[in-house]
Amino acid sequence: MLTNVEHIGIAVRDISASNALFSKLLNVTPYKSETVDSENVTTSFFKINQTKIELLEATSPESPIAKFLEKKGEGIHHIAFEVDDIKAEMERLKKEGFTLLNEAPKRGADNKLVCFLHPKDTNGVLVELCQEIKE
Amino acid sequence: MLTNVEHIGIAVRDISASNALFSKLLNVTPYKSETVDSENVTTSFFKINQTKIELLEATSPESPIAKFLEKKGEGIHHIAFEVDDIKAEMERLKKEGFTLLNEAPKRGADNKLVCFLHPKDTNGVLVELCQEIKE
Repeated sequence: MLTNVEHIGIAVRDISASNALFSKLLNVTPYKSETVDSENVTTSFFKINQTKIELLEATSPESPIAKFLEKKGEGIHHIAFEVDDIKAEMERLKKEGFTLLNEAPKRGADNKLVCFLHPKDTNGVLVELCQEIKE
Repeated sequence: MLTNVEHIGIAVRDISASNALFSKLLNVTPYKSETVDSENVTTSFFKINQTKIELLEATSPESPIAKFLEKKGEGIHHIAFEVDDIKAEMERLKKEGFTLLNEAPKRGADNKLVCFLHPKDTNGVLVELCQEIKE
């Protein structure tokens, strides 16, 4: 079950400049910054009520964010929905005909297990499912 | 003050097909459909917790959605933040150097007063401010 719009990911070229820009726009400062080595990204997070705005800067030309910026420029990169059971949700969506970009949940930013769906099946929208890791 | 991610707008070519697609994806059905003549769009709304997903189809080639689809194809079109005082927020953002696309709040879908910010100032993200109309 999808329980919340957990965050909206935005691809930026210069996260330091964009942190300042989004601090003005949202009138709050980022509460966290985190580098995710496996995805080659540096992230920062702003919180508005129950939804986060996640800025994403590439740390290498191999990063999916570097490729996105090259192709489309800066802008909204993905929507992430919080789910209560990521494996069950992945199974449900696969049966509905959606294409999973990873067959098993993988570790993402912000202490989450994540799975992405291919945007070809979702009107061009890159959708992430995420579930908090409880340890 | 920005109080919530009120909705995420997604531009689609065929809202009837996309209603079926997003019903599968989100596992809920749209709770409302509405045509906004002034914007030349037909919309439908899904609700996930406190945030809506708004699908947008153009009803005329003059629609901003028709132009977006032509230039970028289907995908995420804008993020809308709920504000408690749209005029005060417009004033604040103007002072911060953001460009307002409408100088006075205008009537949007879903019984809202809305204002858009120019994406050139916001890393390519089209940002909407919206406030519920209380009558």
